[in-house]
Amino acid sequence: MKTPLIDNLQYCNWSREIFEQMRAGGVDAVHVTIVYHESFREMVLQLEAWNRWFETCGDLILRGTTAADVERAMAEGKTAIFFGFQNPSPIEDDIGLIEICHQLGVRFMQLTYNNQSLLATGCYEDDDTGLTRFGKQVVAEMNRVGMVVDMSHSADRSTLEAIDQSTRPIAITHANPAWWHKALRNKSDEVLQALTQAGGMLGFSVYPHHLAGGPDCTLASFCDMVAEAARRYGAQSLGIGTDLCQNQPDSVVEWMRVGRWSKVIDYGEGSASNAGFPPMPHWFRDNRDFGNIRAGLITAGLSESEVAGIMGGNWYRFYSENFGPDA
Amino acid sequence: MKTPLIDNLQYCNWSREIFEQMRAGGVDAVHVTIVYHESFREMVLQLEAWNRWFETCGDLILRGTTAADVERAMAEGKTAIFFGFQNPSPIEDDIGLIEICHQLGVRFMQLTYNNQSLLATGCYEDDDTGLTRFGKQVVAEMNRVGMVVDMSHSADRSTLEAIDQSTRPIAITHANPAWWHKALRNKSDEVLQALTQAGGMLGFSVYPHHLAGGPDCTLASFCDMVAEAARRYGAQSLGIGTDLCQNQPDSVVEWMRVGRWSKVIDYGEGSASNAGFPPMPHWFRDNRDFGNIRAGLITAGLSESEVAGIMGGNWYRFYSENFGPDA
Repeated sequence: MKTPLIDNLQYCNWSREIFEQMRAGGVDAVHVTIVYHESFREMVLQLEAWNRWFETCGDLILRGTTAADVERAMAEGKTAIFFGFQNPSPIEDDIGLIEICHQLGVRFMQLTYNNQSLLATGCYEDDDTGLTRFGKQVVAEMNRVGMVVDMSHSADRSTLEAIDQSTRPIAITHANPAWWHKALRNKSDEVLQALTQAGGMLGFSVYPHHLAGGPDCTLASFCDMVAEAARRYGAQSLGIGTDLCQNQPDSVVEWMRVGRWSKVIDYGEGSASNAGFPPMPHWFRDNRDFGNIRAGLITAGLSESEVAGIMGGNWYRFYSENFGPDA
Repeated sequence: MKTPLIDNLQYCNWSREIFEQMRAGGVDAVHVTIVYHESFREMVLQLEAWNRWFETCGDLILRGTTAADVERAMAEGKTAIFFGFQNPSPIEDDIGLIEICHQLGVRFMQLTYNNQSLLATGCYEDDDTGLTRFGKQVVAEMNRVGMVVDMSHSADRSTLEAIDQSTRPIAITHANPAWWHKALRNKSDEVLQALTQAGGMLGFSVYPHHLAGGPDCTLASFCDMVAEAARRYGAQSLGIGTDLCQNQPDSVVEWMRVGRWSKVIDYGEGSASNAGFPPMPHWFRDNRDFGNIRAGLITAGLSESEVAGIMGGNWYRFYSENFGPDA
């Protein structure tokens, strides 16, 4: 089997055009965010919308729940879509909803989105108290059913505790190393060492706020960073999680940032003068541009097999080991 | 493969003891009612409770979603549990919830429970206006995803329209012929002819209000009725749907009857002087007594193969043809 091309984080304003771009770009699987601050019932509405996409665009995409669905997508010339939450709000305060969400196809859940949650501390809080009592139970239940703990928006202590508490590898689906670009959302070397030593995966983001130089970041700088990460953590622990938010109106970034938790705007990674979605770097505009990253990684000195792993083979292996019940 | 033993309707006060009785009785699959008047969110709580049963009693039962799960249950010496709704309340007014419920494992849904619903007319209403606009859309969507239309508690015109409207066979999972015992819940010959001629299934109930003579109904009378139904409709269209409500407190029959729709009690098939669950006939107390029915059907003159079909083979065939997407 050819190694699949997998992007492990997108949250676009979905359309047939974007699915066509996935096909044009040869993207075999995408992990899509389906909710930020939504309740369980609101999350179900998003699943319903996805069911309609699978009905109306079934020639381009299919619903993915296992690694075998990536193979099926490749065989049928389609893109497999996997679901994830960026915030645990859909499980409310009910541990039983984890298995329900897994039965509905959800495969990744962040324990926090920037703020303190019922489970752990987000990366924008002043104090990080680690996993809560409920959080520890949730990690165990996620391990049991095969839902991946994602700490992309969590604070360091919480992340380290999740790595330690989890009996299965966890993921940071979309972030970059802080040693390349210091940002609240990027991750310390300590966190990335612990993550990868426990078998976990890091997905590199091309969201401009996570890039050295922002939208002006060069492909070479990005790819040199990946090559350095491969030296530090091993290429087999690395993948892509672009955080592509194509065609989203700025109202969506506001929903991401403040949901219903604040009456005043919080600019998150942006600022009052740069409040909306930032422009993407010219070398990654949409799903048709993964070839640029692939070529850049070769130029940066990574081997063909390392690059194939980073571009999707590693996520594929991770999917095959972590989306089913604990053995 | 041995022909499976399937009971296509139970709503017990579930316990390990009842699952052990299923095993003692050699019951390979049971379609269980999980809700009457519950909302979608309340229905999910019932699914959560079932997930816990599968965890704690996984040595006795497993979650069934396809006919292959019946085979798996037989191979593992367990009982496969299939889910159904007796009222369409969990889909609220949202057609997208049908596929969501199917993805959660629901395989049967009654379009009505005694009363008028958003979809059709129940058997206790004075006037039967047939399928509603929403009802026709819902039948088409249930056909598409592979959820079986169940008209056990519906009025005649609505039932005939559902049979006509549905492109796939439907079911009356738990009722008896009105020509044997006249009751609002039992079905006219016209309805049973139309049902079975369209490939649909009738499951015979042993709930005393549906029996000639009530709790005193004899096994011979019940089995002679089944034999007559086999002559009229063909044995291949017949199965069992006991409506066993073992160990339920009388508060549950009140919930069935009035849910939240009435502030005054409605006695349904009972009466003020006989308001609770009626006692079961002595020849069918619980899951260990299917052997009595099997023997009685042989005595009533049905062939071994007809009896094997009625005791589960026919439901198994029906499951294999109707639980997946429309071909």
